[in-house]
Amino acid sequence: MLAYNIHHVAIAVENLDTAIAKFELNMKVVPISREVVEDQGVSEAMIAVGGSFIQLLEPLTPDSSVGRFLSKNGEGLHHIAFAVHDIEQALAHLKSTGARLIDDEPRIGGGGHKIAFLHPKELSGTLVELVEVDHG
Amino acid sequence: MLAYNIHHVAIAVENLDTAIAKFELNMKVVPISREVVEDQGVSEAMIAVGGSFIQLLEPLTPDSSVGRFLSKNGEGLHHIAFAVHDIEQALAHLKSTGARLIDDEPRIGGGGHKIAFLHPKELSGTLVELVEVDHG
Repeated sequence: MLAYNIHHVAIAVENLDTAIAKFELNMKVVPISREVVEDQGVSEAMIAVGGSFIQLLEPLTPDSSVGRFLSKNGEGLHHIAFAVHDIEQALAHLKSTGARLIDDEPRIGGGGHKIAFLHPKELSGTLVELVEVDHG
Repeated sequence: MLAYNIHHVAIAVENLDTAIAKFELNMKVVPISREVVEDQGVSEAMIAVGGSFIQLLEPLTPDSSVGRFLSKNGEGLHHIAFAVHDIEQALAHLKSTGARLIDDEPRIGGGGHKIAFLHPKELSGTLVELVEVDHG
């Protein structure tokens, strides 16, 4: 198994405060962190649910990746991220299968984790992120 | 907290076998179950990842809910399901907040679990399912 857990499920939102308020009201949860990730053009909030997170993503600018997603699709599910122990090993496996990758090499994402994205055409139209997380 | 875990993340796919093969090749995972859920008009496969599942959904007919989703959006993320201990209690809370629900009362979903869907307008454009699961 390449991944050992669902790390997070990301939702693109127009306004982070509005989205957080709705999650708090309905799901009785509050974010454990908020962060601006300039490299990805987002302001994000992480909400812990069991051993995974809901990641709320508000674009910093309309021409960012998430900004363009919102213009095209409106608010909604954006990507799913899987936790891996060794992202270089995971990417080496994916290259060996001929998988289409957005990131050939890891880069640094939210929380300072090494991350890499697969192309959505690779897994049933789903944008998939790998996140390297120390386990335990 | 209303939910204690992400139960599954569902992906709408054109062909279940093709989607399963891609997950097996790239993610080194195979389904733990396959099931036809007539009530929801889908043939589904559950792939365990950590304490959660990826649920692959192939519509039984083009005019089913997932069939119409595919016609409009193509393959991709369809909904997220949260595990709850007591779905009646969860729905009572959601009614008290004025949340828009698709299911006012629980019905039986895949695996024989009691389930209920919230309207996607309620949580940032995201179709959310609650699944009652015995824990432990």
